[in-house]
Amino acid sequence: MTASLPRLIQVAAIAALLAGRLSAQVPRTTAPAAPSLEGIPPELRAKAAQLIAAATHSTVGYARLQTLCDTFGPRHTGSTNQAAAIAWALDQLRNEGFTNVHAEPVTVPRWVRGRESATLLAPREVPLPMLGLGGSVGTPPEGITAPVLVVTNFEQLAARTNEAQGRIIVFNIPYVSYGQTVGIRSRGAAEAARVGGLASLIRSVTPSSLRTPHTGLMTYPAQGPRVPTAALATEDAEMLWRMQERGQTPVIRLCMEAQTTGETVTYNVIADMAGRSRPEEIVLISGHFDSWDVGQGALDDGAGCLVAWEAARLIHELGWRPRRTIRVVLWTNEEYGSHGAKEYARLHREELSRYVLAMESDSGIFQPLGFRFTGSEKAAALMGGILSLMEPVGASRLTLGGADADIQPLLAAGVPTASLATENSRYFYYHHSEADTVDKVDRVEFQRCTAATAVLAYLLADLPEPLPR
Amino acid sequence: MTASLPRLIQVAAIAALLAGRLSAQVPRTTAPAAPSLEGIPPELRAKAAQLIAAATHSTVGYARLQTLCDTFGPRHTGSTNQAAAIAWALDQLRNEGFTNVHAEPVTVPRWVRGRESATLLAPREVPLPMLGLGGSVGTPPEGITAPVLVVTNFEQLAARTNEAQGRIIVFNIPYVSYGQTVGIRSRGAAEAARVGGLASLIRSVTPSSLRTPHTGLMTYPAQGPRVPTAALATEDAEMLWRMQERGQTPVIRLCMEAQTTGETVTYNVIADMAGRSRPEEIVLISGHFDSWDVGQGALDDGAGCLVAWEAARLIHELGWRPRRTIRVVLWTNEEYGSHGAKEYARLHREELSRYVLAMESDSGIFQPLGFRFTGSEKAAALMGGILSLMEPVGASRLTLGGADADIQPLLAAGVPTASLATENSRYFYYHHSEADTVDKVDRVEFQRCTAATAVLAYLLADLPEPLPR
Repeated sequence: MTASLPRLIQVAAIAALLAGRLSAQVPRTTAPAAPSLEGIPPELRAKAAQLIAAATHSTVGYARLQTLCDTFGPRHTGSTNQAAAIAWALDQLRNEGFTNVHAEPVTVPRWVRGRESATLLAPREVPLPMLGLGGSVGTPPEGITAPVLVVTNFEQLAARTNEAQGRIIVFNIPYVSYGQTVGIRSRGAAEAARVGGLASLIRSVTPSSLRTPHTGLMTYPAQGPRVPTAALATEDAEMLWRMQERGQTPVIRLCMEAQTTGETVTYNVIADMAGRSRPEEIVLISGHFDSWDVGQGALDDGAGCLVAWEAARLIHELGWRPRRTIRVVLWTNEEYGSHGAKEYARLHREELSRYVLAMESDSGIFQPLGFRFTGSEKAAALMGGILSLMEPVGASRLTLGGADADIQPLLAAGVPTASLATENSRYFYYHHSEADTVDKVDRVEFQRCTAATAVLAYLLADLPEPLPR
Repeated sequence: MTASLPRLIQVAAIAALLAGRLSAQVPRTTAPAAPSLEGIPPELRAKAAQLIAAATHSTVGYARLQTLCDTFGPRHTGSTNQAAAIAWALDQLRNEGFTNVHAEPVTVPRWVRGRESATLLAPREVPLPMLGLGGSVGTPPEGITAPVLVVTNFEQLAARTNEAQGRIIVFNIPYVSYGQTVGIRSRGAAEAARVGGLASLIRSVTPSSLRTPHTGLMTYPAQGPRVPTAALATEDAEMLWRMQERGQTPVIRLCMEAQTTGETVTYNVIADMAGRSRPEEIVLISGHFDSWDVGQGALDDGAGCLVAWEAARLIHELGWRPRRTIRVVLWTNEEYGSHGAKEYARLHREELSRYVLAMESDSGIFQPLGFRFTGSEKAAALMGGILSLMEPVGASRLTLGGADADIQPLLAAGVPTASLATENSRYFYYHHSEADTVDKVDRVEFQRCTAATAVLAYLLADLPEPLPR
């Protein structure tokens, strides 16, 4: 997931807006005290148990996640890796009972990292592990060599403006939480440029590091100079701060070939399990198929895609065909502007009134806890009942408000949304780094997330009446 | 610490030998049930409390550890970094009340890493983070490009000998514990060469990884071909295994400039706080000043050195002068054959009968738990009493048997030994990797380790009678 600061604020605003429509009977952050099974026919409750058994025994989805990650590696938006992975997914989906399998083109900006390096030249020479931030401009070919000014918050920079001119600004801002700290990534370059800095180096946004830099999206303001920006490992940001505290002035050479090369076309992947009686009513389940250009994009978000895909495949394998259509969407470009999700909402705007629910998993596949839901009070009560059936896999907690990035345009169009919640305290150890590899996804936890997703999708697709809006 | 498999066996053997001399009253792995304060005069008990207060309030030692790590970086045996750090240490020690401050030359083999890389060429091209193992030969300048055979234990290799010829052998052996798993590092190259393999790549010996390779010492058998050997990150070793399981044959290009360049001279650093009445009786406290050539050599073992140094400095700062001499030794070459420790024992052999105790800390500076002690039953009882005074910093647990690497030659010469024991469950996350940086050492835990070491050294140096042998 990207979850840039502006987006988080936007999510919070939407959540607050919707929460206002919910009565006191449905608290904002916990499930109703006694979730009701009213409205869920007994045969559907039995099918939930069968789905859980099937999902927790199937190894197909997890093995396919491993194959995806090992075969294609990271799937950066617009890359040949991503194109190859999309072709592979379309081929696989067509061979296992999905209908309406197709790719929908999306024009996206293309950013390319190129070669890059950061070297501490003084007080001693040592290479610094780094990753340029997505969207950054590059340096001149000879790099930028300059003394460093280290600050531990933005107020310090404001207080030391007269020392910033001609320096590389290092933001050694400690991690509090992803939501509270990630602002450094988008703001750093703009703040550095505003005070005459030549480049911005941020401390990676992570609570744990083995000298591991983490990339992510940054944006420039419409006005003003654009300076290159990259992430250092937390260890090196701290070291530079200590050196400065000792009265030393570290000197760094930063070389980045990063550039935005124009626009290119990538694709959302769509695959349906068509409904038997109301195929025009759709339960959408999804993850984003693109990733950053490092690691394997396993937790972010290959695993989310494979959970949705495998949930639908299992329903088909059981020979079940619910009333409504279950649509799997593998989004493109989540990491670089969410153009995939926006384009889908635009293209499909005529049909969105018939969407029962849009679900995404983009917070890491770990032990599932439940779902974050945004919708009406009536719908929340029914969701509570459905989630109570997920107790066997630990996923029965309903929380209200918010939505993962790709389903926000659908939420804005009035579609109720659910985002898979997991015990993801380790997520930001790996996120956007070379360490986001498939071994970080536990097979049993993957199966449980699949079970929860399958139960949610099947029940909502087969209830006699659609989820109330 | 190095702790190669043969050495661990040797330690275990010595421990077993010595344990046989201890009665049932002193269990092998826990402290005596009621440690006796008999033999420890009340004024020394009071001084233990004062030392703990001083050590847990001093920031001098920890700040000096930061300066050491940031200023000189890793201190590989025979490197210019190490030479500069030794010169700095001598200078500092001379300026703060130590006597007999000098460096003792030790001739050591010099191994140099040079440039190195491993690249997966098929089924897809991706660079693999790696670290050559210390002692490895290099590859030809063009590298070694060969298909891979992955095994998950040595028995598998024996069973697949006919497939090994001309391959790069990858040992994807899962971590159980450091002691049980590290044998892969020394044995890998020999086993690969024996079956006609062209090189050996091991899975890094660590329980946790963020795509982090870990180096360490390897050795070749006297006979037979010598093939290059390096460590991959656990993630990549697992990926290669999965690819092979899918029927693919990964191809890797390995390039290493590694070479042993002959012998060079490095130095043990010695500094005394001379005893007031029996200066010829010595309590030796120590850590090893050399490290691997990556990271900062902070946990392994800059922190152990600074704990010993700071413990002695604090005693001096308090204006105390115990009966016997407290000697600080910063060993050289622990990571590359322990030539420093061996040479010291040889040079000082005439005086070893007057050593009260040799102490080292080389298992990581974390929350102290106590000391591992090897010596007589009578001495163990007294040690139990001394350790009971360390309860305020949590370091009161006496265990019996074993000794850190550099004090083993002294142990072999009859000197009782104590090795600082810490809650080091995270140690092998960082050990021998780029992530062994000073931020991994907690200041409060460092202070507590210093307190325990200072109490041990001072009391043993000032007891009316020396610790019985």
